[in-house]
Amino acid sequence: MSELDIYSRQNFGNSVGFGHRAALVLVDFTNGFNDPALFGGGNIDAAVKRTVGLLAAFRERHLPVVFTRVVYAADGSDASLFTRKAPGLRMLTEDHPAGAIVPELAPIAGEYMVRKTQASAFFGTGLAPWLIQQGADTVVVTGATTSGCVRATVVDALGYNFRPIVVRDCVGDRAIGPHEANLFDMAQKYADVLDRDDVIAALGAAV
Amino acid sequence: MSELDIYSRQNFGNSVGFGHRAALVLVDFTNGFNDPALFGGGNIDAAVKRTVGLLAAFRERHLPVVFTRVVYAADGSDASLFTRKAPGLRMLTEDHPAGAIVPELAPIAGEYMVRKTQASAFFGTGLAPWLIQQGADTVVVTGATTSGCVRATVVDALGYNFRPIVVRDCVGDRAIGPHEANLFDMAQKYADVLDRDDVIAALGAAV
Amino acid sequence: MSELDIYSRQNFGNSVGFGHRAALVLVDFTNGFNDPALFGGGNIDAAVKRTVGLLAAFRERHLPVVFTRVVYAADGSDASLFTRKAPGLRMLTEDHPAGAIVPELAPIAGEYMVRKTQASAFFGTGLAPWLIQQGADTVVVTGATTSGCVRATVVDALGYNFRPIVVRDCVGDRAIGPHEANLFDMAQKYADVLDRDDVIAALGAAV
Amino acid sequence: MSELDIYSRQNFGNSVGFGHRAALVLVDFTNGFNDPALFGGGNIDAAVKRTVGLLAAFRERHLPVVFTRVVYAADGSDASLFTRKAPGLRMLTEDHPAGAIVPELAPIAGEYMVRKTQASAFFGTGLAPWLIQQGADTVVVTGATTSGCVRATVVDALGYNFRPIVVRDCVGDRAIGPHEANLFDMAQKYADVLDRDDVIAALGAAV
Repeated sequence: MSELDIYSRQNFGNSVGFGHRAALVLVDFTNGFNDPALFGGGNIDAAVKRTVGLLAAFRERHLPVVFTRVVYAADGSDASLFTRKAPGLRMLTEDHPAGAIVPELAPIAGEYMVRKTQASAFFGTGLAPWLIQQGADTVVVTGATTSGCVRATVVDALGYNFRPIVVRDCVGDRAIGPHEANLFDMAQKYADVLDRDDVIAALGAAV
Repeated sequence: MSELDIYSRQNFGNSVGFGHRAALVLVDFTNGFNDPALFGGGNIDAAVKRTVGLLAAFRERHLPVVFTRVVYAADGSDASLFTRKAPGLRMLTEDHPAGAIVPELAPIAGEYMVRKTQASAFFGTGLAPWLIQQGADTVVVTGATTSGCVRATVVDALGYNFRPIVVRDCVGDRAIGPHEANLFDMAQKYADVLDRDDVIAALGAAV
Repeated sequence: MSELDIYSRQNFGNSVGFGHRAALVLVDFTNGFNDPALFGGGNIDAAVKRTVGLLAAFRERHLPVVFTRVVYAADGSDASLFTRKAPGLRMLTEDHPAGAIVPELAPIAGEYMVRKTQASAFFGTGLAPWLIQQGADTVVVTGATTSGCVRATVVDALGYNFRPIVVRDCVGDRAIGPHEANLFDMAQKYADVLDRDDVIAALGAAV
Repeated sequence: MSELDIYSRQNFGNSVGFGHRAALVLVDFTNGFNDPALFGGGNIDAAVKRTVGLLAAFRERHLPVVFTRVVYAADGSDASLFTRKAPGLRMLTEDHPAGAIVPELAPIAGEYMVRKTQASAFFGTGLAPWLIQQGADTVVVTGATTSGCVRATVVDALGYNFRPIVVRDCVGDRAIGPHEANLFDMAQKYADVLDRDDVIAALGAAV
């Protein structure tokens, strides 16, 4: 019996579907996570390029857009246990170029910026309240890395009962094995995993 | 370059280590998650059997012990979006045998029971406050499934700055591919992954 | 300058208004909080009686309804620090009559029950996710006590960006001074404080 | 029967006491909350002056120190529902002088700064994880306003099972009625309320 068969027989892998109003979340699409010498590599740059059109689609429809960045204090005062596993993260201070959103996806006024020190965009942040205020019930997730901050964000989105949609070609990881393994887990248990163009089609016509 | 090399060059995979006081968390070691016809299979039963001795070690040392169970209301009033991905979970009501802790690991008075409807033992529960009250700074995680509730619990434990220790031979999954993939992710980014007997040794002598 | 003048000059006390879909929250309307020998007294019983019609109005309109109860484990395993301030709370176990909802307001199938050990109905519970799933953006709050669990619930509702509406004649407290003082604080900073009949009018016609 | 009698007969008002390691939290001691023309007045300036010595006592003992500030984005992207009740809060952007800590209490390197948009210092922030990492089990709370951010912070501290100690002469409010009413509520249900010099004595000798 294949792994997929096991999940199928236990009735995992059903669809959450779209709700009435989707928000786009761009997880850690920063210079540092698109630089193979820092935290990047693999298929992240390809995901950045695919996300340009998706971001445009959300903006055309005046749908909510959220960016996330990892930001640690320069004096080390908030260096969490996470930075023991991955000490390089501490370089990501407010003004360090590695922590800035990649130029192709630069935010515009009114888009929400989550500063975070953990993997999930929801943990210890104002994201859930912001989505509630926007009337969003669906969260379209892109970004890096699939096996890290994307997945943690998706698990929490589901926890809050926001419908998580992972955009297969708009998420990336420094290594392909974990990328694929985490797409599998998310599709089985936490999210719908769709291609970018199917997501855009599901948003309906621009207004 | 291997995947491990990629993570190593980016300086992931360091150790969090033990703190001063460890709590044991047994994630969803319930009949339903040990039954291949429901949500079980793979190496979960072996993990249950290995955990018996670990639980005894914590009890001998009078260290805090936490169990988790998935519990949904019988009237469907709290059927979350998670139950759209995996509808079978809705059978896990307060009194259904599938939701009871496996007999080998039955809780005793004073051990904390987390009732949850999400993957993480922390999400929407009183677990973080309880650990704070116990003075725990380290969370030794066992249970099922590695790729599901164990991992989600570990990510949140790290988020709260409790040191997560995953016990390699005391966690299990219905399929081995996701089990291994998630051990890899956790060891690189979120937790120390250790063998049971090394964990027991690290606890020090029984008191 | 009166206290109201001070708040007015600093531009507090504005209205949050109703959104598109309101949920009713009945905070701790249990036998124990309606019994002056336990945790009740003051104007709580009057609030219970006024709430009967409000609950009917929500049910007629098929709007979401939430009850809360304090529930502690019988073995003391989850006795929080809160029970050091108020040890009597520990009697409120799953099956103790003092912890049951008052008969006049008994829940029906499909209404959501929050079991909590803290003042706020949101803290360490699944309430925010449940409201998101229901598509609620407004939270009409009734219950006991005004200066305790009602206020804590209101502050967290505002934190999540659910519009809090406190129903003046459907909240009560064991003592009138704290009742009035907390209505003042909530009206200035956290909620709209309205009479029951104005809330019912704002819900629109039954469907 | 007086109000105090009512609480006493229901066995409220017991002490939480000090634990093993206290952290100091200075809530919103910013220029704006010490300016009667903005959000200040009443006895806030007196509380600032009393807190100088308390902060020195924590620093001498190398105990953890936390400051909080309200910070909203300049583009209005995170203007929460709270800013509908109190629109003036939106002026408190990262660089506005009203949002800076008062000069008498300026933070030093290594002290933790909570940026928040809600009343509680815990809500949607990294404060609970930071306190866990510091090994703190007791939270000594000072700041402004007693009836607002101080109280909300205290309620959440108790929720997390950190022992809350409110320093009576180091908290202040724009109006004295709410100040006194909230000290009463906190002393009965959520915290110990002590004078500054008793808190310093309880910290033990400087090291």
